Amino acid sequence: MGDSDATLRRRATFAAGLGASMQPMNGKSAAASQSSVTADFGRDNGLGKRDRMVETARSKSKSEKHKRRNDISERMSCHKTQESLLSSSSGFSNYRGILNWCVVMLVLSNARLFLENLLRYGILVDPIQVISLFLKDPYSWPAACLVIASNLFILVALYTERQLSKGSFTERVGFQVHCINMVNMLTFPAAVVLLVPSVTPVGGVFVVGTHSILFLKLYSYKDVNKWCRELSSVKAKKLARSLSCPSAQHLNGGDRKVCYPGNLTIRDIYYFVFAPTLCYELNFPRSPNIRMSFLLRRLFEMLFFMQMLVGLTQQWMIPIIESSMKPLEDMDLTRMTERLLRLAVPNHLLWLMFFYGFFHSSMNFSAELLRFGDRQFYNDWWNSETVTYFWQNWNIPVHKWCLRHFYKPLLRRGFSKMVSQSAVFFLSAFFHEYLVSIPLRMFRLWAFTGMMAQIPLAWFVGRYLRGNYGNAAVWMSIIIGQPFAVLMYVHDFYVLHYRQEAD
Amino acid sequence: MGDSDATLRRRATFAAGLGASMQPMNGKSAAASQSSVTADFGRDNGLGKRDRMVETARSKSKSEKHKRRNDISERMSCHKTQESLLSSSSGFSNYRGILNWCVVMLVLSNARLFLENLLRYGILVDPIQVISLFLKDPYSWPAACLVIASNLFILVALYTERQLSKGSFTERVGFQVHCINMVNMLTFPAAVVLLVPSVTPVGGVFVVGTHSILFLKLYSYKDVNKWCRELSSVKAKKLARSLSCPSAQHLNGGDRKVCYPGNLTIRDIYYFVFAPTLCYELNFPRSPNIRMSFLLRRLFEMLFFMQMLVGLTQQWMIPIIESSMKPLEDMDLTRMTERLLRLAVPNHLLWLMFFYGFFHSSMNFSAELLRFGDRQFYNDWWNSETVTYFWQNWNIPVHKWCLRHFYKPLLRRGFSKMVSQSAVFFLSAFFHEYLVSIPLRMFRLWAFTGMMAQIPLAWFVGRYLRGNYGNAAVWMSIIIGQPFAVLMYVHDFYVLHYRQEAD
Repeated sequence: MGDSDATLRRRATFAAGLGASMQPMNGKSAAASQSSVTADFGRDNGLGKRDRMVETARSKSKSEKHKRRNDISERMSCHKTQESLLSSSSGFSNYRGILNWCVVMLVLSNARLFLENLLRYGILVDPIQVISLFLKDPYSWPAACLVIASNLFILVALYTERQLSKGSFTERVGFQVHCINMVNMLTFPAAVVLLVPSVTPVGGVFVVGTHSILFLKLYSYKDVNKWCRELSSVKAKKLARSLSCPSAQHLNGGDRKVCYPGNLTIRDIYYFVFAPTLCYELNFPRSPNIRMSFLLRRLFEMLFFMQMLVGLTQQWMIPIIESSMKPLEDMDLTRMTERLLRLAVPNHLLWLMFFYGFFHSSMNFSAELLRFGDRQFYNDWWNSETVTYFWQNWNIPVHKWCLRHFYKPLLRRGFSKMVSQSAVFFLSAFFHEYLVSIPLRMFRLWAFTGMMAQIPLAWFVGRYLRGNYGNAAVWMSIIIGQPFAVLMYVHDFYVLHYRQEAD
Repeated sequence: MGDSDATLRRRATFAAGLGASMQPMNGKSAAASQSSVTADFGRDNGLGKRDRMVETARSKSKSEKHKRRNDISERMSCHKTQESLLSSSSGFSNYRGILNWCVVMLVLSNARLFLENLLRYGILVDPIQVISLFLKDPYSWPAACLVIASNLFILVALYTERQLSKGSFTERVGFQVHCINMVNMLTFPAAVVLLVPSVTPVGGVFVVGTHSILFLKLYSYKDVNKWCRELSSVKAKKLARSLSCPSAQHLNGGDRKVCYPGNLTIRDIYYFVFAPTLCYELNFPRSPNIRMSFLLRRLFEMLFFMQMLVGLTQQWMIPIIESSMKPLEDMDLTRMTERLLRLAVPNHLLWLMFFYGFFHSSMNFSAELLRFGDRQFYNDWWNSETVTYFWQNWNIPVHKWCLRHFYKPLLRRGFSKMVSQSAVFFLSAFFHEYLVSIPLRMFRLWAFTGMMAQIPLAWFVGRYLRGNYGNAAVWMSIIIGQPFAVLMYVHDFYVLHYRQEAD
């Protein structure tokens, strides 16, 4: 009884198997007997080759049994010797999905943080409040006045260069005038910010930042013009001019190449002041035209990221900073670490937004507007495997300036690479401290120390960590280092201003 | 005055440049004049070719000026037309560092969460408490007794197969005995767990899980033995035997191949019961020997992950679940979402640890101990771009069983792929619900619904999402779907047990 059952099922299975393996006859298979298979074949192929058909049918019946056997024995053996994928001996290494996992986990974690923050604090974003950061008294605009006054430094630099080109000033006199001009450029705004109480910290950063950029630009302007004069004194004037200005032909459709004294115009110096670079050049590469859509996209990004920066600071940074004051005062180390890590995420996101908004959106915006061709404002610092690579690539305008006007001149004067590199870090540390201490009106050297700490860090990472480990170390130093400095300054600022009031 | 200064500096610069480009004479360069260069050359190369030396010196002096000019003009032009890397037109696509960024961010976020948790709750880990999860009354071990009693089912299955092989049972009688045996295997432990109050939920999961695995194993045992009998009835007994047992030679150094009725021994069935597979086979592939170091490493991992699982549950999961009860009762949607996202991270980490601990460590451990050769307990589900691929690859033993004993038999009986696939999901949903509802003693169908929801999800992901988006969707469904079901069950369990007490 059971046997016949099994036979029937076997046939059905075979037919299904045959149907699968022989596509053309898959319609009529079912529990087809041998003769029906033969008949089918006969009908399809005509009657002439009947003998061969019978032969085929017989061999089919054999192969049917054979298939059936193979089918069952295939079903029966379903294991083979092999290693687990996660065993090192398996040699498997495709973990592509892990990146997606990381992204999903980060998105979810931050969505959670966002919700938690909203539930705890409600909505803190207040765009109007931002204005009060710039203005204490709406009738006094010290920051704006200072920025307008900075035009004077530009005009002095241009005047000096004109006198030098005409020979009215000797090199030494010119150098002295430039020096006085440049020292004033750093000390005058600093003095005003320190002494005038109506300058807010944010206004102060703006003033001091503008003047620092101007300082670097005019230093470059002075250097390049001096090189032009040197170049003309190396050889006969004609040859030199043809070098500093290889061919006075039309370039990029309409732009004439400018040669040395011809560049000393108001138009030229102001183009340089507004161009997104710190390195002066007589003939900047120009893009052929202004792409409106590109311009508008960058403008939109600028506005969007500015809003995001303000919103995230109000909603996310400030509550954490406020809640960190107590542990910082008590020097409660565990809570301080927890607050530091908590601050690290929004601080890092803000920095990334600032990076994109400033180095990509607004620099590309001004470059597009001025048809400035060289858009290399940053390099792929996110892949940096050494600290040095990061500092050389995240801020290309400053890096280029340092290389051209500070590092290479030092090398030419015979200093070693090591000393010159340290000097660059020192200069950078000075400017970092200058940009933070003056507006906050307190000197704590946290920024300076942070920058100088990059030298041993660079040595350590370069020496002991390679590839992805180096990259992770660089990220770690960015993500942890910054909020550490921020917390230090905020703490000191708080202690200085609010605890004194409380006492 | 300034002019002579410039000349001097120029010479020094040239010399340094020359020193760099001509390594052999880099010792004595400094402010070397043309004549000293000539003299140096003369001394080094002997006196004979003085004329040529003078000639060389002259051309050197020319090339010196040339170099100097090139040097300055190189310095002067430092910009070239190029796009920013993040502009789509730059064609740049190396964001390798972003993976490291993700890892660093995840590590830091979780370190922060860990610290916050410690600060809020203190240390909650208590290894002793775990024992109370298994035992209510130390003198009554219902779970252990049930597991010991399950040996009876194994012996019944073996006895039935022996009778079938001898022909004492017909196929129909054998089938009926197997059916009764298998229905008992699922209902008996379920009834005991539901009716005996001293079985804890954890003990219940253990009992029900063991019996489910045994059910699947004995089903496979029955099927394979039936196939063996079918195979021997297809052809003459001799030929069939040579097929089910291709060559009765020594295999893998000493292991004899077993043929059909020869496999029906206590030793063989117990090897299969303990082997990390659900699919029976007469001759499993065997590994040549037991690697002690491999065994110990897997054992260490098992113990480590078990501790981690318990610790994380006590420290991280339970506080969140407890704090979720209030929002869940009030149906406060924002807070519920926040708690769900908060639970998602530890729940997912626990699941990953469970996966590694169970599917890699303990399965490899038992495989190594039994010299079981096929270590494919999971495939690269982390790369799965469709939901189907995930379910086919994360649990290979169950997948293999479903394919061999459920999906393919359904196909052979003429059901369509779609129907068979849905049936597999249905079976899986049944077992998921069985494994959860019985130990918790409540029937809510959340697990069942969760599994059945995979069908439309699989359809949606397969239809609309490709590549990394599909992968991210799969991750998302794993990370969010699980804690959702967990929260639902915990909520219902809480309402059922604790609110009733409170009322």
